[in-house]
Amino acid sequence: MTIIVDAFGGDNAPLEVLKGCAEAVQKFDVDILLTGKADTIKKVAAENNISPERMTIEDCDEVLTMHDTAESVLKAKKNSSMGVGFRMLNEGRGDAFLSAGNSGALCMGATLLVRRIKGIKRPAFAPVLPSSTGCFMLLDGGANVDCRPEMLRQFAVMASVYMEKVMKVDKPRIGLANVGTEDHKGTELYRETYALLRDSQLNFVGNIEGRDIPKGVCDAVVCDGFTGNMILKTYEGVASVLMKEIKNIFTGSMKGKMAAALVMKDLKVMKNRFDYNTYGGAPILGASKPVFKVHGNAKAITVVNAIGLCKDYVAAKAIDVISASLK
Amino acid sequence: MTIIVDAFGGDNAPLEVLKGCAEAVQKFDVDILLTGKADTIKKVAAENNISPERMTIEDCDEVLTMHDTAESVLKAKKNSSMGVGFRMLNEGRGDAFLSAGNSGALCMGATLLVRRIKGIKRPAFAPVLPSSTGCFMLLDGGANVDCRPEMLRQFAVMASVYMEKVMKVDKPRIGLANVGTEDHKGTELYRETYALLRDSQLNFVGNIEGRDIPKGVCDAVVCDGFTGNMILKTYEGVASVLMKEIKNIFTGSMKGKMAAALVMKDLKVMKNRFDYNTYGGAPILGASKPVFKVHGNAKAITVVNAIGLCKDYVAAKAIDVISASLK
Repeated sequence: MTIIVDAFGGDNAPLEVLKGCAEAVQKFDVDILLTGKADTIKKVAAENNISPERMTIEDCDEVLTMHDTAESVLKAKKNSSMGVGFRMLNEGRGDAFLSAGNSGALCMGATLLVRRIKGIKRPAFAPVLPSSTGCFMLLDGGANVDCRPEMLRQFAVMASVYMEKVMKVDKPRIGLANVGTEDHKGTELYRETYALLRDSQLNFVGNIEGRDIPKGVCDAVVCDGFTGNMILKTYEGVASVLMKEIKNIFTGSMKGKMAAALVMKDLKVMKNRFDYNTYGGAPILGASKPVFKVHGNAKAITVVNAIGLCKDYVAAKAIDVISASLK
Repeated sequence: MTIIVDAFGGDNAPLEVLKGCAEAVQKFDVDILLTGKADTIKKVAAENNISPERMTIEDCDEVLTMHDTAESVLKAKKNSSMGVGFRMLNEGRGDAFLSAGNSGALCMGATLLVRRIKGIKRPAFAPVLPSSTGCFMLLDGGANVDCRPEMLRQFAVMASVYMEKVMKVDKPRIGLANVGTEDHKGTELYRETYALLRDSQLNFVGNIEGRDIPKGVCDAVVCDGFTGNMILKTYEGVASVLMKEIKNIFTGSMKGKMAAALVMKDLKVMKNRFDYNTYGGAPILGASKPVFKVHGNAKAITVVNAIGLCKDYVAAKAIDVISASLK
């Protein structure tokens, strides 16, 4: 199996991306096709003793940055490391494509370059987040700010397949993000979606309020991309601010440092559990070939985990299962 | 000044409400008019040595619970402690009304029993939340799931007045919740609202992404009530889950308990900063008389703080200022 990786996506590229790829080759027995400036990739790899074993490079000069528009992947930046990654995927040069670059451009490319699974109205950006009992998928995380009920129903179907086939959850519990648990709550979009999910074959557990989302009461939370993006980033923001406050307590005084020494191990476990790096990649569900987004701040470990998810997604033939589930 | 207080609103009523009222009488030099079952109030006060000084009771038998519909405050439960509170406010028997009861019913009553400030399209539920640098107002927190741009503009005007007059913030920075910072981001509602706010006299600082909300980058975050409710409760949920994890670390082992002893003071300061009880009440902005919501889980200290906010809101003639700002 070959995973195509955008060597120049994200804040820590190419070094952390290369480190992650080298480790993934060993850990998951996969080949890597890197896209990006070959000279720089070779130089950084050599300087950091990163083995090029089972890694090939598709050379391209340009990089699509966070400041580029989403549309630029289609034309102006089609020869960037991201644009070339999509081309490699379409040409069958690899089984999945992974990038830590511009999310908007990646969703745009997944939709218009890779194209959708037949019958899927819109692909969704589908990150997996930590909860107090494990993890859950949140979708759409921001690919579609305007949604219709049928789109949300499809998101739920795709999330159910992903959580079952890739995350190995039995009968994934699907929740609908909403402002209250009663079926009449929310906007028209949410009331109509509630009815669609209730009448579906899915394991629908009803409306989920924001305060219950982090408690792990379901395996996937479905919502429109505007709401999902606000939840996702608020989630990340609150966790990050609180972790920083805790760090300040433990580094701000001698007493704090002594306390830190006593509970360091437990604190690290907790920090790792609530760190997005642990969960790695987010699939763009609905694209007709596997496309994964890695967090822009991703370190090597995140890239490793994300490549593992790509492998599981390909091996489970998740796209075929989604396709069959739509009928 | 007299503050009307629903003695039977919230999970900890009437005891915590009565405790808070008694303390507020001393602290803020206000009179309290309690609504609810007089017998129970007198009994609970006597059993807990709560002084009835400067507190009068408007007797009523019924209680509007969390299971009642929002509409019930208008007819079926108009003689509940909440319904009677609204009547007292309308009859001029007090200067502000405070309840820890059913939010939906309180917003409904504020809109249809107290009525709106002339020119205000819809009142907004406007809680104040902690951030890493202080606090900020989030509105609408859930009173209106469907909003139009003009409503969001009015929310921004009201928040600016509140943060300036009650919270004493100079030139409050107003942000628009959105999925990106660029002016073309979000749904049509958000793009149109962006233009209205940009062209207003407000200190508009642009779109605010979820991850920046907890960092205190603005003094008020404006959004529709569906989005606001999801942000509000996710915020609360993530903070609560993380605080519980920390508590587990410090109580789960002997080492943890030793560490806790060292940093207990700092941890308490942090816990208090991120505890909604610290910020007390949330005004229902746009109602023609002061109506405040207290969190359903509120303890006495929250009731005290909220009564302080009611007093400041009345003293600042915030409603007159809002009314003048609309012209």
